[in-house]
Amino acid sequence: MTSTTAGDARSTDTQWTDLKAHWQELADLGGIGSLLGWDQSTYLPSGAAAGRARQQSLLSRMVHARATDADYGRLLDAVQGRGDLSPAQTRMVALARKNFEEATRFPAEFVAAWSQHGGESYSAWTTARPDNDFTRMVPYLEKSLDFSRQAAAYFPEFGDPMDYFIDRSDEGMTAAQVGEVFSKLREALVPLADAVIGAAPPRTDFLHRHYPAATQLAFGEAVIRDYGYDFTRGRQDLTHHPFMTRLGGADVRITTRVKENDLGEALYSTLHEAGHALYEQGVSGEFLGTPIGGGVSAGVHESQSRLWENLVGRSRAFWAAYFGKFRDAFPEQLSDVSEDEMHRAVNTVARSLIRTDADELTYNLHVITRYELERELLGGTLAVRDLNDAWHAAYERNLGLRAPNDVNGALQDVHWYFGSIGGAFQGYTLGNVLSAQFYAAAEKANPGLEDDIARADFSRLHGWLRKHVYAPGGLYQPAELVERATGQPMTVEPYLKYLREKYGELYALS
Amino acid sequence: MTSTTAGDARSTDTQWTDLKAHWQELADLGGIGSLLGWDQSTYLPSGAAAGRARQQSLLSRMVHARATDADYGRLLDAVQGRGDLSPAQTRMVALARKNFEEATRFPAEFVAAWSQHGGESYSAWTTARPDNDFTRMVPYLEKSLDFSRQAAAYFPEFGDPMDYFIDRSDEGMTAAQVGEVFSKLREALVPLADAVIGAAPPRTDFLHRHYPAATQLAFGEAVIRDYGYDFTRGRQDLTHHPFMTRLGGADVRITTRVKENDLGEALYSTLHEAGHALYEQGVSGEFLGTPIGGGVSAGVHESQSRLWENLVGRSRAFWAAYFGKFRDAFPEQLSDVSEDEMHRAVNTVARSLIRTDADELTYNLHVITRYELERELLGGTLAVRDLNDAWHAAYERNLGLRAPNDVNGALQDVHWYFGSIGGAFQGYTLGNVLSAQFYAAAEKANPGLEDDIARADFSRLHGWLRKHVYAPGGLYQPAELVERATGQPMTVEPYLKYLREKYGELYALS
Repeated sequence: MTSTTAGDARSTDTQWTDLKAHWQELADLGGIGSLLGWDQSTYLPSGAAAGRARQQSLLSRMVHARATDADYGRLLDAVQGRGDLSPAQTRMVALARKNFEEATRFPAEFVAAWSQHGGESYSAWTTARPDNDFTRMVPYLEKSLDFSRQAAAYFPEFGDPMDYFIDRSDEGMTAAQVGEVFSKLREALVPLADAVIGAAPPRTDFLHRHYPAATQLAFGEAVIRDYGYDFTRGRQDLTHHPFMTRLGGADVRITTRVKENDLGEALYSTLHEAGHALYEQGVSGEFLGTPIGGGVSAGVHESQSRLWENLVGRSRAFWAAYFGKFRDAFPEQLSDVSEDEMHRAVNTVARSLIRTDADELTYNLHVITRYELERELLGGTLAVRDLNDAWHAAYERNLGLRAPNDVNGALQDVHWYFGSIGGAFQGYTLGNVLSAQFYAAAEKANPGLEDDIARADFSRLHGWLRKHVYAPGGLYQPAELVERATGQPMTVEPYLKYLREKYGELYALS
Repeated sequence: MTSTTAGDARSTDTQWTDLKAHWQELADLGGIGSLLGWDQSTYLPSGAAAGRARQQSLLSRMVHARATDADYGRLLDAVQGRGDLSPAQTRMVALARKNFEEATRFPAEFVAAWSQHGGESYSAWTTARPDNDFTRMVPYLEKSLDFSRQAAAYFPEFGDPMDYFIDRSDEGMTAAQVGEVFSKLREALVPLADAVIGAAPPRTDFLHRHYPAATQLAFGEAVIRDYGYDFTRGRQDLTHHPFMTRLGGADVRITTRVKENDLGEALYSTLHEAGHALYEQGVSGEFLGTPIGGGVSAGVHESQSRLWENLVGRSRAFWAAYFGKFRDAFPEQLSDVSEDEMHRAVNTVARSLIRTDADELTYNLHVITRYELERELLGGTLAVRDLNDAWHAAYERNLGLRAPNDVNGALQDVHWYFGSIGGAFQGYTLGNVLSAQFYAAAEKANPGLEDDIARADFSRLHGWLRKHVYAPGGLYQPAELVERATGQPMTVEPYLKYLREKYGELYALS
């Protein structure tokens, strides 16, 4: 018996060793894929796109083969049946199982047909959009909706197809929960935005003077170094559409873009992506190379980009810390500008038709509009042919304006045109909600945090976030992470309080 | 019968399609590996080295698995047995077979032991070198020599182990041929170098004024754009040790380094690597993704880097074309310098102990010295324990000076310390020899080529090289390529003529 027991122990240890090696390989292949993507968005010569696409497709096939390997599936079965796993191991295996099901449950022909449709739909959108022709996209969207419903049907454990799509990026969250949060938000935000937009707008002329690119970039990098972004484990490069990407556990890169006649562009893009990167750089080393070795959900990820961009980077305390340095960097351009004017200018609120150009306050109304349309489409209460009209009506209701064309209507974002509809947008606004909830908890645990920021000292804030949000990686489900970190489930109250206080003061609302 | 014939044709077509797909996959994996290496040498954050090494090792294993795949071997057997291949197909299969044998003939334990020894040897060298202690490396080199002889013994078709190692980088060339070329060269170069070094040295003070990096880089990039380097299929970045790398058929990148107090550093490194890149960018599109879709040998490759760096870039005609522009870029620094002084300064000849710092003329003596020592080691006529003494004696004989230490003696280059001895150096000097032979043939076919260069017009030179050297890729063995392009086998005469005329005129030798 002794020898059998020893044998069992050896064999279960071997299982775990094999599993970890397989996960590490998947993580390393993922990092290689990220490098291919990073290079494509930063330095790839213009003539090399076709060759790069072939390399990416080859790598995807290699990843898919490993992610769906039958031996790997059996190993997961065997390990899931064991009773001796630690909580962290249990969670790793659960997430691995989720990924495995996602990779294997669709029949190969379904994946191929869906993927081909996605390519055709995207390609059609790239011409329908400049032609301002939504009707041309109707048959594609109808097919996308079919595919999306079929996909969800492979996961019958989710009652509502929308729940399936939300769960893919915001694990454990349901359409009912998101809908409740978004209703509360809209109820509060529509009148708040009205009041702010009705007040006297701040001065913004100086944002559009000439600001040399190199100085702008150096300033942004100095700020995120203060935030705690570790340049020995990351770097910043230029791109068209800024993003954060993880090439490895110790290689978390960000990108930005710079406009010499727009002071906010590079700075706030850098602060946003640095927020994502601080999260990834902060994941506990022991989890790297496992299914829990990264950020846990779209919503929690976005909470960190928005926290560092908005709650910190657009605060009065931030400009108390940095305005002097900023004016030292741009003495002529800012000679007639005060700290208070700078703080007001970067918090301008305006009605707009374009989500990506929207300010902190109205941005959520763009997201909620899209989320509700998605949900109606998937639920069958809105027909694709009526989508563009429904879009315009919702914009009038939520944002008080109407796009004069399809381009700024239902053709606006690429998200719906990759062949799948559902779950693409809610993470942006969940992130805003959570950013304030996390920040409020950090402030409660660290009295005087605002004074720290006014001295450009982010050590207590970063330290608290690292411990309560970053280090756990994917160890807890998002809802559990939020409750552990803040003492309560996700709630809109801190966010609404933050917005009301901030904009109430900035715009002298009664 | 008709249907059987059709069936055969289909099946052989399938063979060829499968083979091409396999080669394309190997090429794409190679390109991904090149991207990992390029990024490591340019932009990788300092803390990310361990993760990158793991990614590279994973990719190497995946490449090895495909390169040694038994089905692939059987496919090669089947195709090699066919009588219906075109000459290009025959050559592709022959090179594929050569690579397959190289990847499969060593037993796995031998590869593992050799590779482990290589790592240990390199690691020991990194401390023995700063400690100036050659004796510490003697046991490692002895083991390297053993491994190298054993490796060669797996390829008994090569009589001399040195032939095996030479063939790996300079296919078809033998130690006897290289030895003959090098003897002739040494005989001519030793007295020529003596004469040049005995003459009055040119003025070089202005090379070491302050030259801002960005302007230096922009100038070098403007020159290689004139050469014909295609920036839509490549780019230049900064690194420590400049190199050219091919990430794909349409993605051929170069790197350089810049010293603000050394005008020659960035420019000539850029011209050198651009020469390698022009070769790779010029390979015929129909060969890309096959075993003949790249440069054919180390020697031919180096001939192109040296041709564009030295025969063009250090010529009187080059400075006739560029000195004015150069002085426009650096008006203050070059205010007291003439075109003739610039041309002389970049052709300074001096005795030196370090290969990588050597000038165009004495460089070959460094290479020949190493080659001859390698050959004696492999041949058993020189014992490792006597290598450092033999090094010093050879330097006195060939270069007229003696290093005061081991660091600049046998510990100087890393090449011998990776676990393998043989074939590491000859390509550099074969490249010099071939550069002049190709250039002379291009001149003969294009009278007045020097006048083109003096107008910064490289279209006829680049066009001739593209047609006769670049486009064929690996279609011909190196010796056949040389003979087709120049009308004769490799010969030292054009190179010696070039050196004698150039230095005779520059240093007014009688």
